[in-house]
Amino acid sequence: MQNNRLLFGRTIGIIGGGQLGRMMTTVAKHMGYHVIVLDPTPNCPTAQVSGGQIVAAYDDMNAIKELAEKCDVVTYEFENVDLTAAEFLEAKGGILPQGANSLKVTQDRELEKKAMVDSNQPVAEFAIVQTVQQLEKAVEKLGYPSVVKTCRGGYDGKGQVKLTNERDIKEASEMLSATDRLIVEKWVPFDKEISIVFTRSQAGGDISYFPVAENIHRDHILHATIAPARVAGHIAEKAKKAAKAIAETIGVVGTFAIEMFVVGGDEILINELAPRPHNSGHYTIEACNVSQFEQHIRAICGLPLIPVYAHGGAVMFNLLGKDIEPFFRKMDELTPAHVHMYGKEENKPLRKMGHATFIGDNALTIYNDLVEKKLIESN
Amino acid sequence: MQNNRLLFGRTIGIIGGGQLGRMMTTVAKHMGYHVIVLDPTPNCPTAQVSGGQIVAAYDDMNAIKELAEKCDVVTYEFENVDLTAAEFLEAKGGILPQGANSLKVTQDRELEKKAMVDSNQPVAEFAIVQTVQQLEKAVEKLGYPSVVKTCRGGYDGKGQVKLTNERDIKEASEMLSATDRLIVEKWVPFDKEISIVFTRSQAGGDISYFPVAENIHRDHILHATIAPARVAGHIAEKAKKAAKAIAETIGVVGTFAIEMFVVGGDEILINELAPRPHNSGHYTIEACNVSQFEQHIRAICGLPLIPVYAHGGAVMFNLLGKDIEPFFRKMDELTPAHVHMYGKEENKPLRKMGHATFIGDNALTIYNDLVEKKLIESN
Repeated sequence: MQNNRLLFGRTIGIIGGGQLGRMMTTVAKHMGYHVIVLDPTPNCPTAQVSGGQIVAAYDDMNAIKELAEKCDVVTYEFENVDLTAAEFLEAKGGILPQGANSLKVTQDRELEKKAMVDSNQPVAEFAIVQTVQQLEKAVEKLGYPSVVKTCRGGYDGKGQVKLTNERDIKEASEMLSATDRLIVEKWVPFDKEISIVFTRSQAGGDISYFPVAENIHRDHILHATIAPARVAGHIAEKAKKAAKAIAETIGVVGTFAIEMFVVGGDEILINELAPRPHNSGHYTIEACNVSQFEQHIRAICGLPLIPVYAHGGAVMFNLLGKDIEPFFRKMDELTPAHVHMYGKEENKPLRKMGHATFIGDNALTIYNDLVEKKLIESN
Repeated sequence: MQNNRLLFGRTIGIIGGGQLGRMMTTVAKHMGYHVIVLDPTPNCPTAQVSGGQIVAAYDDMNAIKELAEKCDVVTYEFENVDLTAAEFLEAKGGILPQGANSLKVTQDRELEKKAMVDSNQPVAEFAIVQTVQQLEKAVEKLGYPSVVKTCRGGYDGKGQVKLTNERDIKEASEMLSATDRLIVEKWVPFDKEISIVFTRSQAGGDISYFPVAENIHRDHILHATIAPARVAGHIAEKAKKAAKAIAETIGVVGTFAIEMFVVGGDEILINELAPRPHNSGHYTIEACNVSQFEQHIRAICGLPLIPVYAHGGAVMFNLLGKDIEPFFRKMDELTPAHVHMYGKEENKPLRKMGHATFIGDNALTIYNDLVEKKLIESN
């Protein structure tokens, strides 16, 4: 793949104006780039720092064309970029260094699973179903509990049903009225959830890995990340190898994240892919020599990646709407908290409003302290 | 002093829209504050990230009043803030946590020297003169070489004359036609130039110190900073003690910098004060757990300071207009460079256009490597 090197003074377009775009933008600005964000919400979190916004729907092709005209390179902060728009940008040659394929694959759980399998990576047993009959047959084979998800759309636990007995099949089969395909996955009891965030360059495809992180979810939303993950060295190695294999299969460029389960103490199962910086990589801002956002901007601008290392351990936790008041009430006990707030106007109980990161010599010490202070829930 | 705690969602006003304001703004935004900058240049470096600007002269009192009305707290990125404006803001109570005194003292070399002396800190021998006769008498006493500076105004070597013999007195005395007072200082041969950047909180006045840095100047402009400075531990301790004494004399709040000379191997002489984040503290962005900018925002917003530590060593060098092209030509040799560009439209040979920071285990190794690559000049 060609490597278009863009230096300071050029303009980066970002599709999507949430917190990921916002954090990409502040590093892009530090590096001297201009930024224009495409987002339907005026003064969205990214626009508050970008200084330039096209207010339009993500699939508004005129807006996409305007973005392409105004920018030297385009990236995105979420996977649900309109594929027609992505393919249009890719066809312009060089303006979408990440390409459309990463989006295509990660927008569809069937293609996503196929990419994992094609990369010889372990996944939970699964079946793709299009009819109620196929669904029943799949559940018969996979057993209870299992989980049914729409192949397209859905995030943070939306668009999925856990099946614990025959009665749940009815609820799951109702999803077939709104979508053409479902994926049924065997429910795997896991020891831990981990993720690996990495960045792949345009030219040469070299990869820099951030330390494997351990994630704690609550209500299907990331609650806290501990980095490095409390896993054996060979688990972290497996995670890296999986990342490399999948990145090469898909042809990843930029920062990308893979969520995995640790099962049976010794194995990993690939769970989900995200073709962008990831919530579980926010800790890199303070804990690593280079953040997932800086490395992403470097990749899409064709600059050499910075070899990554961690300064120590870190714990990051999300500040959902409901967490804001209790967190700031404890501010004086939380001297070393690096607080990031996303500038979202409306506070909702389960909305990600910000995050806080603590760094130090030892992630476990930080974690235990935060659990004791009731700021994070232990897993 | 009272401690007005401002949390995310509130608005910070910054007087001055250059790179220091820009770097303050990106951290303020990460912390969820809104920012409005007052600067006469539309789309100045800070406005490119703040999203809000009052385009006006720094001494435009209507603009200052507008800033005060729109903001919950006001700070500044340079010392030449109009003193009437600063006193107006201070009188409003709490809106200018740094107060006007830090500005008053650092705007005037006579008051600045007095503050150093009042703090029992060592300074080079000096005299304040108002007439040519006084100037001649002072030079007679201090000897050659000595240096004459205007008491007010002047930066990066402007407004000063080095006297090496009697003939130079004429040039220096001409400065008296434009200003009422000059300061004559004995020229001190120094071993090293160092600086200490620190932050003092509003309530309690506790201070957090960044590691003492070593500075190399070229043409009176900071060329490179090595941190930690290559000095003995007791020199660094003297620098800290001087910082504490001067900060308490002046009543500093926020991030503040003191430039010093190391003389005779074992002593320090205080040279200059800067009531704001400082070029020699840029390395803290990558090399410390908290940057001089984040700590400054915490101080002026009444948040507890984060205890500071360094992750390792760092070398920062400025990218002047003339350095840009050679630097970016070597990009591939400079993989681990964190590049910061300030978004200035016009490139001038001696204008600070950006800076680059390298971090690692050992500052000296980095320094030697950069000297070898001819990216920085050795001192």
